[in-house]
Amino acid sequence: MKLASISYKGTDCIAVAIDDEHVINIKDAMIAAFGSDAEIPVDMNHLLQQGQTGITKLSSALDFALANPTAVMHIPIADVSWHAPVRKPGKICGVAMNNSASNSRKISAPDHPAFFLKPASCLIGHEEAITIRSYYGSVHPEPELAIVIGTTMRDVDAANAMEYIAGYSVMNDITGNGMRAEDLFQYWAIYADEDDPDKTRRVEQHLSYAARYKGTDTFGVLGPWLVTRDEINDPDDLSVECKVGGEVVAEDSTRYYNYKVAELISFISQFHTLHPGDIVSCGTAFKASANRKSIHNANFQQVSGPVSVTIEGLGTQENPVVVENRTIGKWRLS
Amino acid sequence: MKLASISYKGTDCIAVAIDDEHVINIKDAMIAAFGSDAEIPVDMNHLLQQGQTGITKLSSALDFALANPTAVMHIPIADVSWHAPVRKPGKICGVAMNNSASNSRKISAPDHPAFFLKPASCLIGHEEAITIRSYYGSVHPEPELAIVIGTTMRDVDAANAMEYIAGYSVMNDITGNGMRAEDLFQYWAIYADEDDPDKTRRVEQHLSYAARYKGTDTFGVLGPWLVTRDEINDPDDLSVECKVGGEVVAEDSTRYYNYKVAELISFISQFHTLHPGDIVSCGTAFKASANRKSIHNANFQQVSGPVSVTIEGLGTQENPVVVENRTIGKWRLS
Repeated sequence: MKLASISYKGTDCIAVAIDDEHVINIKDAMIAAFGSDAEIPVDMNHLLQQGQTGITKLSSALDFALANPTAVMHIPIADVSWHAPVRKPGKICGVAMNNSASNSRKISAPDHPAFFLKPASCLIGHEEAITIRSYYGSVHPEPELAIVIGTTMRDVDAANAMEYIAGYSVMNDITGNGMRAEDLFQYWAIYADEDDPDKTRRVEQHLSYAARYKGTDTFGVLGPWLVTRDEINDPDDLSVECKVGGEVVAEDSTRYYNYKVAELISFISQFHTLHPGDIVSCGTAFKASANRKSIHNANFQQVSGPVSVTIEGLGTQENPVVVENRTIGKWRLS
Repeated sequence: MKLASISYKGTDCIAVAIDDEHVINIKDAMIAAFGSDAEIPVDMNHLLQQGQTGITKLSSALDFALANPTAVMHIPIADVSWHAPVRKPGKICGVAMNNSASNSRKISAPDHPAFFLKPASCLIGHEEAITIRSYYGSVHPEPELAIVIGTTMRDVDAANAMEYIAGYSVMNDITGNGMRAEDLFQYWAIYADEDDPDKTRRVEQHLSYAARYKGTDTFGVLGPWLVTRDEINDPDDLSVECKVGGEVVAEDSTRYYNYKVAELISFISQFHTLHPGDIVSCGTAFKASANRKSIHNANFQQVSGPVSVTIEGLGTQENPVVVENRTIGKWRLS
């Protein structure tokens, strides 16, 4: 199934696609199929918390609606407005430098996945505006495969990890590399002495902090669809394309991720419990396009949108880029 | 008011302190004061979303309960179990290196606050176990003042920021500096050329990723109380103490933060919209104690808990530290 969180005529609902041009409100379908006492999820998080039971029930309601085409109102996709499919995920983990195209640029790097967090407050949906301010500095798109967790997972081996996935979506992990360059520290870290914990030792360390450059408002475009896992044969072999202002800036595939989908969520689950609705964004697919453009050329302070990301089997998201005209030129502390 | 999210006899509720040894369930108080059709918040997030109206109403219910001591059941604090006061904040922003004691260790650093995110999934409450595994490497406590946002804020000047605060709490921002040292990258970053966006330039950059070392399960202790803003005269002048295994390892004050409470949330609001229930943890208060112990000596792989944090006016949290005995010695990718 292709699920979405939409607004239609002012009402928010979960929708499911019935063909390329129409969705139905799952509330309508479930009432038609099961009667008015059907337990209808209020939002996508709620649906995901119902687990496989909720998905199976929804699938039956969809079958009913397809078999009875006049029983449930068909909503034209052209008339809906889109939210992120999961509007308030408990967490969004973003995997860093997971594309094999970045390997040659690594001078030193860990031998395991590294990840950061994006806040739910940065999420927008398909067709919503990405909003940039001058004081953000350079900002560029990062097209990524997003995993949506379906079942609470902790310490799950990679061999068993796939069954914890509800489905997949498209993430544009908007990145302010101007702010990235501003939030760097070089300092003397203090560690306990390994032999004598009463003593400490100083270690020169470079640290950087990702909350601004990865989490600023509108820096996460998710959707349009949450495509359930059964529809994607191999998430580790999907083509990815990103366009800015109509020009292709990345032509890539999830097959070039260093770590596979199952490895990523297995690894994270050995530190963080992953809950239904949590998102793991697998890292940027940024191989340069045939015309030699790259996402790094697509600084939204210089080039105009819209920006689109397409992943094979998951659909296309497209968003305008708005450069806000603000009287203040810089953030302030007073 | 001192608010808490607790369980008592198997039922979760929001509680409010009526004296040093007792709380009441706000549901009981509101029904006693306003009748059974009172709109009772289901959890702390819900209460905070009601804004000042909700707080004022709760305050009236508390006054009623204090004036009518037999009208509402008094629950002994000794009999409750504690959750984080806000169990699922939309986001938790942690401010980096905000203590003036760290300034002399900075070789280079930004001239503004830098911050990272912790996931809601890492939160535990007062008296819950901090759980450490051998493959986490060294892990230490970081005692911090936590701000709880009460009103949605975006682009709020520091001069007006305080009124957006619902209250304060105590955060132990548990930090795995072993993992911190493992999640470092040195690499050639690519930026768009400022003069010719068709060109790019390479910049050597050190990046680090905080999700593991700041966000692993049980790495955030919040509480016991959410103390409403009206009870704290000056959040920028509160003493902070941290003990590990009964020994003082930090004696500090929020007056030594580089950036004040109002400056921090104003700054963040110029990038991230802050929502009711969001947490901003102000940075570690880690000045060494008179006995020359520091939090950096308190590696939980070497020293035993419990760990406690006390902030003037906000109370004391104390948590056991459990080193898990696991058959696997290291995380795995297969």
